[in-house]
Amino acid sequence: MTIKAVVFDAYGTLYDVQSVAAVTEAEFPGYGDIVTQIWRIKQLEYSWLRSLMRRYQDFSVITRDSLAYTLKVVGLTCDSDVFERIMEKYLHLDLYPDATATLAAMKDRKLAILSNGSTGMLTALVHNSGLNRVLDATISIDSQKIFKPSPEAYSLIETRLGVPPADVLFVSSNPWDACGAKAFGLHVAWIERVTPEAMALACVNSDLVTPLTMFKAIRTQMDELGLEPDYRIRALADLPKLVAQHP
Amino acid sequence: MTIKAVVFDAYGTLYDVQSVAAVTEAEFPGYGDIVTQIWRIKQLEYSWLRSLMRRYQDFSVITRDSLAYTLKVVGLTCDSDVFERIMEKYLHLDLYPDATATLAAMKDRKLAILSNGSTGMLTALVHNSGLNRVLDATISIDSQKIFKPSPEAYSLIETRLGVPPADVLFVSSNPWDACGAKAFGLHVAWIERVTPEAMALACVNSDLVTPLTMFKAIRTQMDELGLEPDYRIRALADLPKLVAQHP
Repeated sequence: MTIKAVVFDAYGTLYDVQSVAAVTEAEFPGYGDIVTQIWRIKQLEYSWLRSLMRRYQDFSVITRDSLAYTLKVVGLTCDSDVFERIMEKYLHLDLYPDATATLAAMKDRKLAILSNGSTGMLTALVHNSGLNRVLDATISIDSQKIFKPSPEAYSLIETRLGVPPADVLFVSSNPWDACGAKAFGLHVAWIERVTPEAMALACVNSDLVTPLTMFKAIRTQMDELGLEPDYRIRALADLPKLVAQHP
Repeated sequence: MTIKAVVFDAYGTLYDVQSVAAVTEAEFPGYGDIVTQIWRIKQLEYSWLRSLMRRYQDFSVITRDSLAYTLKVVGLTCDSDVFERIMEKYLHLDLYPDATATLAAMKDRKLAILSNGSTGMLTALVHNSGLNRVLDATISIDSQKIFKPSPEAYSLIETRLGVPPADVLFVSSNPWDACGAKAFGLHVAWIERVTPEAMALACVNSDLVTPLTMFKAIRTQMDELGLEPDYRIRALADLPKLVAQHP
């Protein structure tokens, strides 16, 4: 196997989507956790449902709609300034602490993002976090008008980088995304940030299960979709060594 | 508007998917709620993800895989007898108490189920609950190899009943399903079983949010997908009066 390009998922992989909790908790004290988790669950659901319904709208619309849903369901109201302040966080998500160094250590390969995010969201996010200095391309699925994990989304890697699937290592912490990439024919490294043991422990007393526990339970363990990633790693920092083994 | 056929979603609409909690709690005391909710979340996710990945497997496989995922993530193990006993409940789900009388009251129309369930699961479920005596057809999306809310799934109503979308009232309590049916062009009655007020109240203290609260928060309120059902009703029992207004 040759790795000519390393392509990253953005939300949850390079960027910590849980970092929106700082803003949601500041705006809605006591509700930061539940707002953050429902928002993310609905954001993903809407991307899949709109894809299946053939009613594509870009990810900025979906992120806005899912936040509106969340506030409504939790019984919160806010003026448009507050709403925009929360939305704005999606353009300033925290990088995982090892993201920049990991990318810098692999600059002998083509490096790119392939994300469900809209072109506008991704351009701002990559610029604000400084990753534009190390990435060769930031690819939004926008032009296909269908979201990951559909094959049309992953096909953009070859279209845009000129590297065939067999020479690509795709990196995601999202199990559904790792499976989608594998189904398409990419090599896949899945980042397992929460161990099964830690998760099971958190579930021991279900009376104490928080929205964050639920999120982890449904979003951080490998899914049962009949597909297995090629590599399981614990953090982005494990990548350079893995990639170096495949010149 | 004419209503020649009334077509029902099965899981969550005629049949109470929460009724599996009786079995999950009996087998895993203290874990019934979390197992029930994660199982359902994953069951739906896998149906959408497999549809998008073009890796269709029927709903009995998906139901089995999502239960396996759930037990693993929660840290539970069981022998195959227990696993099968839990699975078996999906063939014996409780009907909502008003289901049989509601169907019987509308027997001047064609009555059918359109469900993501496999033909085998639905045949057993409809027979075990006695609904086979009042239904004209039980339609599984199986033959299309893609799940609701894709248009191909809803198109089976016309194929199988010979009734065009304009003459069909589709009934679902699942917001994503109501939206999918509406996007396809059916008339839609959405059953709003949990009021927004009750939901917001349950979220007041997020320290006390249970898996069931989270489920309700993400599954029982109308989604923000740019689509509106034609009718909002509170229970199946509200249907006969609504249908009678459209001869």
